[in-house]
Amino acid sequence: MTEIGPYSNYRLTVRLQLANAPGMFARVAAVLAEEGANLGAVDIVSATATCMVRDVTFDVRDESHGEAVLARIGALPDVTVLSASDRIFLLHLGGKIHVQSKFPVTTRNVLSMVYTPGVGRVSQAIAKDKTKAYAFTSKSNTVAVVTDGSAVLGLGNLGPEAALPVMEGKAMLFKEFAGIDAWPICLNTQDPDEIVRTVQAIAPGFGAINLEDISSPRCFEIERRLKGTLDIPVMHDDQHGTAVVLLAALTNALTVTGKRIEDIRVVVNGLGAAGTACCRMLLAAGLSHLIGCEPQGIVLRGDGEQLRACRTDLGPCMTHDRPQGSLREALKGADVFIGLSVGNVVTAEDLDLMVPDRIVFAMANPDPEVPPQLAASHCRIFATGRSDYPNQINNALAFPGIFRGALDVQARDINEAMKLAAAKALAETIPTAALSEDYIIPSVFDKNVVPRVAKAVATAARDTGVARRRTTISDDFASR
Amino acid sequence: MTEIGPYSNYRLTVRLQLANAPGMFARVAAVLAEEGANLGAVDIVSATATCMVRDVTFDVRDESHGEAVLARIGALPDVTVLSASDRIFLLHLGGKIHVQSKFPVTTRNVLSMVYTPGVGRVSQAIAKDKTKAYAFTSKSNTVAVVTDGSAVLGLGNLGPEAALPVMEGKAMLFKEFAGIDAWPICLNTQDPDEIVRTVQAIAPGFGAINLEDISSPRCFEIERRLKGTLDIPVMHDDQHGTAVVLLAALTNALTVTGKRIEDIRVVVNGLGAAGTACCRMLLAAGLSHLIGCEPQGIVLRGDGEQLRACRTDLGPCMTHDRPQGSLREALKGADVFIGLSVGNVVTAEDLDLMVPDRIVFAMANPDPEVPPQLAASHCRIFATGRSDYPNQINNALAFPGIFRGALDVQARDINEAMKLAAAKALAETIPTAALSEDYIIPSVFDKNVVPRVAKAVATAARDTGVARRRTTISDDFASR
Repeated sequence: MTEIGPYSNYRLTVRLQLANAPGMFARVAAVLAEEGANLGAVDIVSATATCMVRDVTFDVRDESHGEAVLARIGALPDVTVLSASDRIFLLHLGGKIHVQSKFPVTTRNVLSMVYTPGVGRVSQAIAKDKTKAYAFTSKSNTVAVVTDGSAVLGLGNLGPEAALPVMEGKAMLFKEFAGIDAWPICLNTQDPDEIVRTVQAIAPGFGAINLEDISSPRCFEIERRLKGTLDIPVMHDDQHGTAVVLLAALTNALTVTGKRIEDIRVVVNGLGAAGTACCRMLLAAGLSHLIGCEPQGIVLRGDGEQLRACRTDLGPCMTHDRPQGSLREALKGADVFIGLSVGNVVTAEDLDLMVPDRIVFAMANPDPEVPPQLAASHCRIFATGRSDYPNQINNALAFPGIFRGALDVQARDINEAMKLAAAKALAETIPTAALSEDYIIPSVFDKNVVPRVAKAVATAARDTGVARRRTTISDDFASR
Repeated sequence: MTEIGPYSNYRLTVRLQLANAPGMFARVAAVLAEEGANLGAVDIVSATATCMVRDVTFDVRDESHGEAVLARIGALPDVTVLSASDRIFLLHLGGKIHVQSKFPVTTRNVLSMVYTPGVGRVSQAIAKDKTKAYAFTSKSNTVAVVTDGSAVLGLGNLGPEAALPVMEGKAMLFKEFAGIDAWPICLNTQDPDEIVRTVQAIAPGFGAINLEDISSPRCFEIERRLKGTLDIPVMHDDQHGTAVVLLAALTNALTVTGKRIEDIRVVVNGLGAAGTACCRMLLAAGLSHLIGCEPQGIVLRGDGEQLRACRTDLGPCMTHDRPQGSLREALKGADVFIGLSVGNVVTAEDLDLMVPDRIVFAMANPDPEVPPQLAASHCRIFATGRSDYPNQINNALAFPGIFRGALDVQARDINEAMKLAAAKALAETIPTAALSEDYIIPSVFDKNVVPRVAKAVATAARDTGVARRRTTISDDFASR
């Protein structure tokens, strides 16, 4: 089925009652075609000699387009719109996740073991040795997905209730991709002190904390304070998930173009949560020439040594009030452009200012920094955040494996070594021989991604001394 | 199978390697019989001409008894203990609950609807109208089970990690009995201000809050402040769940004995969280003569009008420093004794001080206030918190239906009318004709309990104006 635009974001299913006569459905199809609404599945619900009921699915551009199409269909003679439903909202009815018992409680005997009085023995054992919570509770496999709703997707400060469906979606991905039990925690506060205190307070029941959709710059302080005080891993995915996937993609892109990270000049446009984290990660991976741009121009510039010295917090290196040139100037002679800003701020001609074999990652959503249809012929490798072009930089490639690895070894932290290991494992998921300009990063549905990333992360955790468990669970089974 | 004591709290499964010779197993069975360890299932794992491996399950009295039995078995000639496992701990390995997606995320199309970008439309709809979170997220069916670990079961202040297996057990009961998605929140603070602030902060993602195992008197203030500030129901189950079940049991006991609540004298022994809540609930139900005792003696006494006037907080009526008599004096002429204190504080002879047709609810765990084997012949109706005697006062009879009813109508509160309605519906689950001295309260496995309680609670919520939804979900389906 052809899809309109990148995603079937506005897919409608409409139940129509039509006169049972030749050519009736063709009239509906003609309206859809005229309106540019892409026709999908057509099912017959019931049919009599005079009347036919059909479910017709089609994609529209947006809500008002959908209403216009419905109005035109309803105005056709001998056609009645019985109902119209929106696929995305239907899928969300009642929420997307639920809690399940691992075994049924159908007898008094089981009841007396899982709840009072039997559970009391387990509680007493944990009271004597808190680390036993990892063995006898769900802590070992749970992640709190915490947000304050201040930066929901790219949509802004929508508040905690509006963030909940996104956090549920994230919990689904945790489960589907990594078997992790994640639960959304949507906070009714945007005060960093209160967020820190709340997460500290709820931490005992979770094996790790995933901070999500918290706006910059508050996200930096919140993550730093939580990492400094909690004995479980804390990771703000908007920063580090993106940075890990980006480094993996860049690693493979450099292999394809035959360049080395030590030699290249990189321009990062947009120094928010993700952009800053990407800068830090690239420096950690050995980058020496970095230029960072904000809307006012170049605000971060330096050779690698200078910047690396303060890479745990690049803030002091930034000169927001004294831009040192424009984005166009930054692009002159650059090997790599990384966009984490907004759509259409770079023209295809701007890209020609870069050196040959240039690499362009334009990750603004939904519209990349440079229009994809124009960019392709102006660079050697092009990647976006979108799934309708090759090379999708999607942070769902990183967080499931990173948290899986951290939980597997009961890690105390997710540190830089673990993130670098994740990026390396993610890059190496594609065999070198299979790499190409259009295949620098695996699909989120590649079954090899999570196990490889998890194993690399667990190893790095052990190597850096933040693992409570010496072996991973799978190692345990293997050694029996 | 015979069980030792009330519950199979110490059930061991042992894998034994025995010489394959006649009479070998009989020697093991003889040791178990001598030790008073009740033999359960016996399975053959493997057998050769010379050797047999069996899994043998038996119940012991406690941990040291188990060790002693294992040592004796291991000392038998031609018997090797290959492994021994404890059923309760085995059941708890890795925790008892997990998170599930309601549908799989196996295609890019579904991924783009449940997560970015499709989910963004749902977020925007909720941002415009927060109440839509009830329709399009899990909020409509979720309960946070919140504890600070300060009063875990009857075991004391064990801390948040040790409380986690209990909260998971509670989440299992929520799911199994009422289809509710409950998630444990174990707090790393026991400061009432911080508990209140934390629960306020995490409230947006939940449809209701179940406070659990928070010690008295902090629990009263915490619940009151949360009820006063949150727009979702908050209920401390140790208080109100117990009170609801107790009132239901008393209602039926009074029917059996032909008495009316307005006329009786009730003694409540133990004025902690549960005891105080029971006093308030009994007064709300029309009780006129109430005496409350603490270890120092009678500290609460008055006719119903006086006490009812301040029943939302009985604290001011209590005279801890000026006891007005002993528990024995309180029992003189009483119709009902309600024990929510500790074991063996009342003798069977003390009960003879009460009027005829006396009702005794001795709910201390694990040992009731008066030994059951003695009490039975000294009162007309006897109930405990234990499952090995008739008439178990178990708060699992109340909370699933109360929260189900509250969630069904998207209630803002669980108020007194809803709790009274729950008690009435619970009592009425047993037809009057079926009531007897040994059957005043239904079993927790009675499938009628939750739907009846939920319906009554939902109706009371609507009648008292705290329901957001006019109809329950089941009404919706019925009206189609």
